[in-house]
Amino acid sequence: MEPLLAELRTAVGPSAVLTDTDVTSAYERDMMPLAPHGSPLAVVLPSTAAQVQDVVRACAAAGVPIVPRGAGSGLSGAANALPGCVVLVTTRMNAIVEVDPANRLAVVEPGVVNLDLRTAVEAHGLFYPPDPSSYDWCTIGGNLATNAGGLCCVKYGVTTDSVLGLEVVLASGELLRTGRRTVKGVAGYDLTKLFVGSEGTLGVITRATLALRPLPQAPATLVATFDSTSAAGAAVTGVVRAGVVPSLMEIMDRSSVQAVERYLRTDLGAGAAVLLCQSDSGGEAALRELGEVARVCEEAGAELVHTTDDPAEGADLLAARRAVLTALEVYGTWLTDDVCVPRTRIADLITGCEAIAEDVRLRIAVVGHAGDGNMHPTIVYDPASADEAERALAAFERILALGLDLGGTVTGEHGVGKVKQAWLEREAGPVALRVHRDLKRALDPQGLFNPGSMFSPPREG
Amino acid sequence: MEPLLAELRTAVGPSAVLTDTDVTSAYERDMMPLAPHGSPLAVVLPSTAAQVQDVVRACAAAGVPIVPRGAGSGLSGAANALPGCVVLVTTRMNAIVEVDPANRLAVVEPGVVNLDLRTAVEAHGLFYPPDPSSYDWCTIGGNLATNAGGLCCVKYGVTTDSVLGLEVVLASGELLRTGRRTVKGVAGYDLTKLFVGSEGTLGVITRATLALRPLPQAPATLVATFDSTSAAGAAVTGVVRAGVVPSLMEIMDRSSVQAVERYLRTDLGAGAAVLLCQSDSGGEAALRELGEVARVCEEAGAELVHTTDDPAEGADLLAARRAVLTALEVYGTWLTDDVCVPRTRIADLITGCEAIAEDVRLRIAVVGHAGDGNMHPTIVYDPASADEAERALAAFERILALGLDLGGTVTGEHGVGKVKQAWLEREAGPVALRVHRDLKRALDPQGLFNPGSMFSPPREG
Repeated sequence: MEPLLAELRTAVGPSAVLTDTDVTSAYERDMMPLAPHGSPLAVVLPSTAAQVQDVVRACAAAGVPIVPRGAGSGLSGAANALPGCVVLVTTRMNAIVEVDPANRLAVVEPGVVNLDLRTAVEAHGLFYPPDPSSYDWCTIGGNLATNAGGLCCVKYGVTTDSVLGLEVVLASGELLRTGRRTVKGVAGYDLTKLFVGSEGTLGVITRATLALRPLPQAPATLVATFDSTSAAGAAVTGVVRAGVVPSLMEIMDRSSVQAVERYLRTDLGAGAAVLLCQSDSGGEAALRELGEVARVCEEAGAELVHTTDDPAEGADLLAARRAVLTALEVYGTWLTDDVCVPRTRIADLITGCEAIAEDVRLRIAVVGHAGDGNMHPTIVYDPASADEAERALAAFERILALGLDLGGTVTGEHGVGKVKQAWLEREAGPVALRVHRDLKRALDPQGLFNPGSMFSPPREG
Repeated sequence: MEPLLAELRTAVGPSAVLTDTDVTSAYERDMMPLAPHGSPLAVVLPSTAAQVQDVVRACAAAGVPIVPRGAGSGLSGAANALPGCVVLVTTRMNAIVEVDPANRLAVVEPGVVNLDLRTAVEAHGLFYPPDPSSYDWCTIGGNLATNAGGLCCVKYGVTTDSVLGLEVVLASGELLRTGRRTVKGVAGYDLTKLFVGSEGTLGVITRATLALRPLPQAPATLVATFDSTSAAGAAVTGVVRAGVVPSLMEIMDRSSVQAVERYLRTDLGAGAAVLLCQSDSGGEAALRELGEVARVCEEAGAELVHTTDDPAEGADLLAARRAVLTALEVYGTWLTDDVCVPRTRIADLITGCEAIAEDVRLRIAVVGHAGDGNMHPTIVYDPASADEAERALAAFERILALGLDLGGTVTGEHGVGKVKQAWLEREAGPVALRVHRDLKRALDPQGLFNPGSMFSPPREG
């Protein structure tokens, strides 16, 4: 493999090819503890699309697979290294190429950190909605590859809803441009949305044109506590039925609330579930929307409903929601799952998780984006105990089965990656799996990009 | 071909196979006068997905191409018959299978008329946004195949933004299910959005799960007149910059206004352009938004700005906009083009069309969805005159070139079909074209579905 390493050094410069295993080990895996990962041959950090093309051509000629990678904040192992692969890291391609306020769009390289883009466009009174939990360190390239969501999705959609066009390096080394700079356009197949969420299996995204929105108003916030999960679930269904579209609607179950109260020393109320809701419609429109939510919560039997238009108080409440995973670390290591169910089945999911927790004798805290049904049951375990790790894995899988049984999907926003391949097959079925393999073969006949991630390789023939 | 006809009759029943050319000629073409069309071998009207599968298998075995078709309201010839093909019409599959208000979704067959779906969900306080001009007779299947837009797009997006999942009959005759019933989901490639807008070249959509929204408030309406195109364009840019997102923002140029005034005997003002804007945010929120639009229009030099929250008056103004094409028929046959440009370039597009009209000595009226830059320059000509028809075609093509020059796309919502294949290639470039052909070959290796529509067939090898 020395000839390939020499070619890579020529392509990106010697300092951008890492081979020291002490250094490359930091690029072996993402934030999902369960996913397999191997030692890469090298980690390369190109600075331009032309360098990416050279790296792709060199690896293709040598028959060495490429795993594209952003910041490594992923939760499915999609960016985990395969043994002997080249990890292609896009973090050095981090220019915000253009912000065009009059057409409400931005053109960025993949290594731009989500928060940096948010800050840059905010200066123009604009808003880039997708806000995964890792928004202060994840990159746009990773967001695109996983079609990342976040807290804003209930009102503003997921990453794919904000992408106008892409530039992608294909397995052939050619540069593909998809989409356009206009808001609408139907010239040809929607290649843009095919690459978004393809988890590094179809190409390397080197540039993106993103649609921006007007910066919303400072949000008003409502918190409601419930003494039963079913009452909280009824409130969510009631909000959907009432036709209110909040800008955020999060749910925390009893375990989540307890963990946060212990960690932050706050008092969210000792109920079975807490619902947190925001409206960014501004002024009295926001208060009218939250007034409607309050009415629905009270009808559903809320113990306490509190509304505030004080941004600082709202931020504190949101901080409690965002602190759940950190708060759980007091009890052990967390393993967060990701299912999305019809919004009417959220209470069933939480109740089901309680039963699973009892069965496997582990703490499972459910937090999630109630507004769109995307729940993150989070299992706490001690990875040093093989027995606990095994039970955690069993719980992880049972939660996926439960999600499917409730009419949902095995991943709402984290992706399939290297942990849910069998579940994708179970959810999508054999015909869809074959279509996935056919599309992969059409775009990447050699299996160069992240082979075996998302689904097992196409059978020959 | 008698054996195939016999198989088709077995598949769908004798009365659902039309071969009398007096009857089948009604299924030969859509509403785009320029597109080529041939005589089909037969027109089949299946009633179930299983029948579609049987038809597809029979045609595949016989090597006879299939052109899927909805109501025939298309404007690109995508559903036009190829000589000797089977036209597969989905209008008999017109069941609204389910409306689920608590999860805000509907499941429909492809033959459901857009307006029928709108009416059915309105009874539940819900809203299906995509509203192409032909909404009272076009079908959801055709809307999906073309990724149809409409007047609502500026706030609510296009068809693809409202689709959660599809059922599609593939070239193999297998039934593919894509997507899910949940709002979010990232399990696998986004096959749903690959089929949406694929113009009948990848499969036959037999069912769709559609996301619904809360029914908006009755709109308030603003009309503004301008004595120059550039002032109207500046107003559009100003509205975008001001961060207002109206629920509708339409522009009519001088030719459009004159035609409508003559046809409806209304007085919209004799200026160079009229801007029509609505907000469905309700009550004073709507008036505040339109107040902001009014301020922007006045700053841009509007001659007259009038705002009303009377729904009847608003409907009258909207009727004037919707009457443009009909009004143009007084002068001759219309040929409507479809380009989308960055919103800052709308005035340049209108001015450019004026120059083209002068050059080709034909009336060109520009109407369009100013809020998203999607413009429909409409050429009026006499099809009985070969010379006028030739000049009309020249104008049609020059408008596309102008759209591209302004950084836009050759189709915002009507599609490529059988009239813009060369333009897709010019816009997307050779790499993207090759990717289109590779995807087509992967999903339809035999070239069964609508071969040569959207792009010329893959080269062998």
